[in-house]
Amino acid sequence: MKDQSDFSDIKAVFINCSLKNSKSESHTQLLIDKVANIMRSQKIEIEHVYPLDKKIAFGMIKDGKDSGLEDDWPEVQKKILDADILVIGTPIWLGQKSSVATQVIERMYAFSGDKNSKDQYAYYGKTGGCIVTGNEDGVKHCAMDILYALQHIGYTIPPQADCGWIGEAGPGPSYGDKLENSDVRAGFDNDFTNRNATFMAWNLMHMAKMLKSNNGIDAIGNTTDGWEDVANAKHENPEYH
Amino acid sequence: MKDQSDFSDIKAVFINCSLKNSKSESHTQLLIDKVANIMRSQKIEIEHVYPLDKKIAFGMIKDGKDSGLEDDWPEVQKKILDADILVIGTPIWLGQKSSVATQVIERMYAFSGDKNSKDQYAYYGKTGGCIVTGNEDGVKHCAMDILYALQHIGYTIPPQADCGWIGEAGPGPSYGDKLENSDVRAGFDNDFTNRNATFMAWNLMHMAKMLKSNNGIDAIGNTTDGWEDVANAKHENPEYH
Amino acid sequence: MKDQSDFSDIKAVFINCSLKNSKSESHTQLLIDKVANIMRSQKIEIEHVYPLDKKIAFGMIKDGKDSGLEDDWPEVQKKILDADILVIGTPIWLGQKSSVATQVIERMYAFSGDKNSKDQYAYYGKTGGCIVTGNEDGVKHCAMDILYALQHIGYTIPPQADCGWIGEAGPGPSYGDKLENSDVRAGFDNDFTNRNATFMAWNLMHMAKMLKSNNGIDAIGNTTDGWEDVANAKHENPEYH
Amino acid sequence: MKDQSDFSDIKAVFINCSLKNSKSESHTQLLIDKVANIMRSQKIEIEHVYPLDKKIAFGMIKDGKDSGLEDDWPEVQKKILDADILVIGTPIWLGQKSSVATQVIERMYAFSGDKNSKDQYAYYGKTGGCIVTGNEDGVKHCAMDILYALQHIGYTIPPQADCGWIGEAGPGPSYGDKLENSDVRAGFDNDFTNRNATFMAWNLMHMAKMLKSNNGIDAIGNTTDGWEDVANAKHENPEYH
Repeated sequence: MKDQSDFSDIKAVFINCSLKNSKSESHTQLLIDKVANIMRSQKIEIEHVYPLDKKIAFGMIKDGKDSGLEDDWPEVQKKILDADILVIGTPIWLGQKSSVATQVIERMYAFSGDKNSKDQYAYYGKTGGCIVTGNEDGVKHCAMDILYALQHIGYTIPPQADCGWIGEAGPGPSYGDKLENSDVRAGFDNDFTNRNATFMAWNLMHMAKMLKSNNGIDAIGNTTDGWEDVANAKHENPEYH
Repeated sequence: MKDQSDFSDIKAVFINCSLKNSKSESHTQLLIDKVANIMRSQKIEIEHVYPLDKKIAFGMIKDGKDSGLEDDWPEVQKKILDADILVIGTPIWLGQKSSVATQVIERMYAFSGDKNSKDQYAYYGKTGGCIVTGNEDGVKHCAMDILYALQHIGYTIPPQADCGWIGEAGPGPSYGDKLENSDVRAGFDNDFTNRNATFMAWNLMHMAKMLKSNNGIDAIGNTTDGWEDVANAKHENPEYH
Repeated sequence: MKDQSDFSDIKAVFINCSLKNSKSESHTQLLIDKVANIMRSQKIEIEHVYPLDKKIAFGMIKDGKDSGLEDDWPEVQKKILDADILVIGTPIWLGQKSSVATQVIERMYAFSGDKNSKDQYAYYGKTGGCIVTGNEDGVKHCAMDILYALQHIGYTIPPQADCGWIGEAGPGPSYGDKLENSDVRAGFDNDFTNRNATFMAWNLMHMAKMLKSNNGIDAIGNTTDGWEDVANAKHENPEYH
Repeated sequence: MKDQSDFSDIKAVFINCSLKNSKSESHTQLLIDKVANIMRSQKIEIEHVYPLDKKIAFGMIKDGKDSGLEDDWPEVQKKILDADILVIGTPIWLGQKSSVATQVIERMYAFSGDKNSKDQYAYYGKTGGCIVTGNEDGVKHCAMDILYALQHIGYTIPPQADCGWIGEAGPGPSYGDKLENSDVRAGFDNDFTNRNATFMAWNLMHMAKMLKSNNGIDAIGNTTDGWEDVANAKHENPEYH
């Protein structure tokens, strides 16, 4: 095993897209906290965002205030751009990620044409993951939506970058609920969830560190101004071969 | 710009999950060839697999021959394990990836418990992407299915690891079809498709090179035997904080 | 052909989940209007809802005002319950239905345990469809999300209950945009979109009429209190046969 | 309650898209049998199809034998066209419906341009549902894929037309597995699964009966030759109003 990396220069932001009006009632936050605690133990600087504590405007817009809307998004966007790692947490409702998670992705998408210092899209060089909880079904479906969106706008997705918990088919306890007549909390001892949460935390850290050491993704063949100057799909037509 | 990497030690395999019984009729192959040609120009060693040229058994099994079935999968699996980069190509039918693509992922999944030399899952350290073509709708949906599956079993997904082409809503030409009374081929000059195909090719190469230089993903916190020996989600319960 | 039905006792509500702050800028509204006009020509009573003109609370809640939130949802819910047909319209952003569409479905879901006069879930006997527009990709993916949600809570989905428009892969005009140097509007003459919009409108009408004539779905085997009194899956265990 | 319908003129076909080479090992079959038994108790004629017992060719083709391939699909297609109700059963692998299920839908789709006696698409007037089992996650995702495909080609989807079973997050028993040291079979007593299976069986029967009594969906506005002769989206342009 090579020497363990020093992660103290890495920053992570967790956005909990729960529908609960009070963060204290969010089950998803409990699993987010497990992952964040692993990162914190490695000296990663952690920021948490709870969108329902803020006023976030709808729209494919950078700042709703420009159109006369209340909008706290620009401060969230700043945290996202400052961080190396982004983790989106969502509950599952009817098998889908929450409307808040959809809104967060929409607002991030509105900035997807911005560039970083290497003239790549602004999210290049960052690492993304997600955390999903519900009481019965849909972790993978929500994760595929979220991880696809993140890679589409520039994030790197390391292996097993998602974790989650659900119970057996049907209504039942949510993650962290105390089970009847007991102090046992649903899902806390689920080895699969704990293992996946651990793998995810470490894989996000390893990838963020690797990208930082490499100064991000090399800027060849992936910039809007430069892609035609290297080997490219415009000139590499199949019939030429 | 840092000096360009030497990619000559990288291998890529492209699996075209077309439903056309003859590879020569596959539209998806044309876009695959564009991406493969970019990689080949950088001295990457390329393998192509066309599953419908083979007999591949159904099942969550490693080798159908063990159950008396005809099965060429083991030779495909060997190519996948030998390669640093995997690109799955698929046509879109009714908005979905093909049955052949689903079967390829199932067969890869049957090996997902195997380990690499660092005791991680066997696909760790590899880089994955996908190519999708159809005549009207569904690139992103197919891509999210495929990329999610790849990251779930251990692949790293770099930014913008998919490309594709579709036409306007409704029936119409497929990728590479000659347009009426013309030598123009549908999609070949689509700047968006060409740009995405180029970004994808280069991002896969950059990530594969970065992973190779780093000897894969560091094996801390992401092995089935070792995850409980480092900071982990079993011990980092939220109520402890 | 049997005599044409009289649809004058049918009501339909269209909810446009656009992210545009002004309804007048919504491209989706243009296709919604085509479908609504077909229904209006058959004397169906039409209601339109534009959620961004209202304040709708987040949450799996019936009335946000109970928790001190501004919330216009109860008036929307009333329109939905009064109508025989519901059509959800959504734009596509990053291959997905909008956050507003997700929120609308969440709020409807919060009422999914309510009962109708036959002791079935409240949405039984109603007919649902959807309309999706974007500039490049994702009609089917959005439609499958929306139609699944509607059938899950009690709606009947007739054949081909969705329609949409998208252009060729890549950025481009949105539905109804005037094309360069021309009065031609993108998609308006697309035969596939027009045919699907027509099929959808009529299929929703036929199904709504059929359900109305039948007094909804027969209430045998599909009520929470009565399902164990008829042939059921609790008693029909496979090993008994 | 109105008098119970007589269902003795209804036919149903169940297609089990398991990946198990022997039908006797399929867990999904157990839940299929529960639903089929409910229907059989109402005198519905039941056919079962197990695709892996047959040779089914890949392709968007009607009969692989025309291209020199072994192909038992035409006999399956005949059963589907003879039946009023179609139920597709699938296991979940990596959160998705099986490759066999995808192949079945592809082959049905190849016939989607055929017409019924009213000049509608051939699957009009039929009713569809699905049954999904796995050991941890994905019922809704698989169901939304399958039900969308069915309605897209002409099936009517009644309320709650899907049922399924999964266990808690992580590996575990499959549906019907005997639990450790016990005769209890996983999922058999799950009230949610049993209730949904019952609702589904009855809703499919009620809708099939209603459609049969109505001689299918009225053929106005939903035929490829006739849609322009009634109120339609080509003429109902928004700017006219």
